[in-house]
Amino acid sequence: MNIADLDTPKLAADLDVLERNIEGMATHCHQLGIPLRVHTKTHKVPEIAKLQVAAGSQGITCQKLGEAEVMVDAGLDNILIPYNIVGKPKLKRLTALVQRARITVALDSEETATGISQQATADGCVVPVIVELDTGSGRCGVQSPKAAQRLARQIMKMQGIDFQGVMTYPSNLRAKPFIAETFDLLEQDGIPVNIISGGGTGSEAASKDLGCTETRSGSYVYEGMTRVGRSGMLSPERCVLRVIVTVVSTPTSERIIIDGGMKTFTSYPPKPYGHIIEHPDAKIYGMSVEHGHVDVSECAHQFKVGEQLSVIPLHQGMTSNLHNELVGIRDGEIEAIWQIAGRGKVS
Amino acid sequence: MNIADLDTPKLAADLDVLERNIEGMATHCHQLGIPLRVHTKTHKVPEIAKLQVAAGSQGITCQKLGEAEVMVDAGLDNILIPYNIVGKPKLKRLTALVQRARITVALDSEETATGISQQATADGCVVPVIVELDTGSGRCGVQSPKAAQRLARQIMKMQGIDFQGVMTYPSNLRAKPFIAETFDLLEQDGIPVNIISGGGTGSEAASKDLGCTETRSGSYVYEGMTRVGRSGMLSPERCVLRVIVTVVSTPTSERIIIDGGMKTFTSYPPKPYGHIIEHPDAKIYGMSVEHGHVDVSECAHQFKVGEQLSVIPLHQGMTSNLHNELVGIRDGEIEAIWQIAGRGKVS
Repeated sequence: MNIADLDTPKLAADLDVLERNIEGMATHCHQLGIPLRVHTKTHKVPEIAKLQVAAGSQGITCQKLGEAEVMVDAGLDNILIPYNIVGKPKLKRLTALVQRARITVALDSEETATGISQQATADGCVVPVIVELDTGSGRCGVQSPKAAQRLARQIMKMQGIDFQGVMTYPSNLRAKPFIAETFDLLEQDGIPVNIISGGGTGSEAASKDLGCTETRSGSYVYEGMTRVGRSGMLSPERCVLRVIVTVVSTPTSERIIIDGGMKTFTSYPPKPYGHIIEHPDAKIYGMSVEHGHVDVSECAHQFKVGEQLSVIPLHQGMTSNLHNELVGIRDGEIEAIWQIAGRGKVS
Repeated sequence: MNIADLDTPKLAADLDVLERNIEGMATHCHQLGIPLRVHTKTHKVPEIAKLQVAAGSQGITCQKLGEAEVMVDAGLDNILIPYNIVGKPKLKRLTALVQRARITVALDSEETATGISQQATADGCVVPVIVELDTGSGRCGVQSPKAAQRLARQIMKMQGIDFQGVMTYPSNLRAKPFIAETFDLLEQDGIPVNIISGGGTGSEAASKDLGCTETRSGSYVYEGMTRVGRSGMLSPERCVLRVIVTVVSTPTSERIIIDGGMKTFTSYPPKPYGHIIEHPDAKIYGMSVEHGHVDVSECAHQFKVGEQLSVIPLHQGMTSNLHNELVGIRDGEIEAIWQIAGRGKVS
């Protein structure tokens, strides 16, 4: 089937670019000498995770328990969930999953550790954990090496939970003394640190420099337009995703309307919404929920109702989360249709 | 089951408020003497659409064909799809649906009309259509009464397609001369206008004043915080939706982290993200994809990991589209679990 026959809007991936990006990051990490643990939040597709593992990733990262569950269902193993698992329903799901695959979770409080310990003890299993350090994200994470030591000591006294190390996000300069001091404090206590997990596409070398045992890189797999625009180094040719849309209205000579809006593209970041591959001069200047509003005043091309366009979306992970399936294309032909199995797993 | 036992984040609806909003709009339109055709884009739940029809709505509106299909599957009938249906796959779906239920579609071009005509003729059915007028939305719609007349004349000559009237969005002052002049031109041609469809919660009286035969009102059913904040007349007590979330981290005395971010709440509009019912002084100041960042510096309350909070989201339709199910609650107890069957129907 040719993409011209697709019902639109449809999320599609250019498979040549996808394979190139996967191979490129695997080579990059191999050359740096830092193990890669890909983050699957960007695509949420088990088949793509398997391609990444086949290329050398030592395991995967899933941001929510529900995304890890679908990956285990699909046969993936060795998963880090860098998220505080809290509350009875989720703790039961966690211990069930730990009995099916190698799972490690991150946490940053005694309350989270206690919950995991109690549920794991009740269910007769042990959950490996790492402590999250707030090295500048201003989100979760303990605030100091002392706090990390205090939490590690508490975990060491608990049943059903196994302290494995620490994680940092982002992997930046502030992380260096934070990690080093934490390491020293734990060494003084005789607490072994097996994992120092760093993260973020583009910070692989920094993670290596910090002494990390792995790097969690995710967005590289698709290379969103935000990164393309920001760095100046990347070109749209490195962007895997396209939303195939159709022109549904040409109300004026300056405006055309496409059949995808915020429900198809997400609204983050709000502008410029996306890049139209066939006509870079056509600017998406606005979106309502179901329509994209395109300024074509600078285009020589005469747009027609029914014409298909390919739009590179701005935020790859948020856009993936809005679609049920991903069409893999190569040279204009459809080669694969993958379920975005991790879509919508809010919990 | 009590809401305290829910796995979070979870989208919930306060059923008392929902019923009050449905009844209130039905009464309002009855008193105005304008038939209501509710827009289901806000909730995407067949069970709620049925409550609206039971309260007097003469039919429903679905913004995309896929949303109309799930409503027909659930037994709903008499549906307006105010969207240009374009392209072979969608045209086939349309004629299939027309043979199962009373469907009317809006369009604004000869190309769209021709596509519908040809497919309907091939499939041996007739599709009722109305012409969209651009009365200020700056989106789709013909640009002048003359253009509406021209398109109506073209449709009258086509097979398999039945001209029924016009639709306007928004229902405002500009629409009045536009509609009146269109009506006159069509009357001169002897083309009957059975439908003048107006739209937008809050514009019911304006639609009546414009001579509309129906009003498409949608967002009233949930009353989003955007409207609450804008009008000053509405209070959070009229907001139906809550996202039940859990505090997963309390990294500093001024910051707590909840287990829902942009993937749970959407990112539109970007601020202030949502209103925390239990602690209005706690301000959601930022969101990453899976975390909400809350400033609690002005709260006397001491937040604990594991604590549940109820957050009124800002954009009800976009938030609904991110969740697979909706939990109906009354007095803290779960009374219904509804599938958001229309979720994710991008096409």
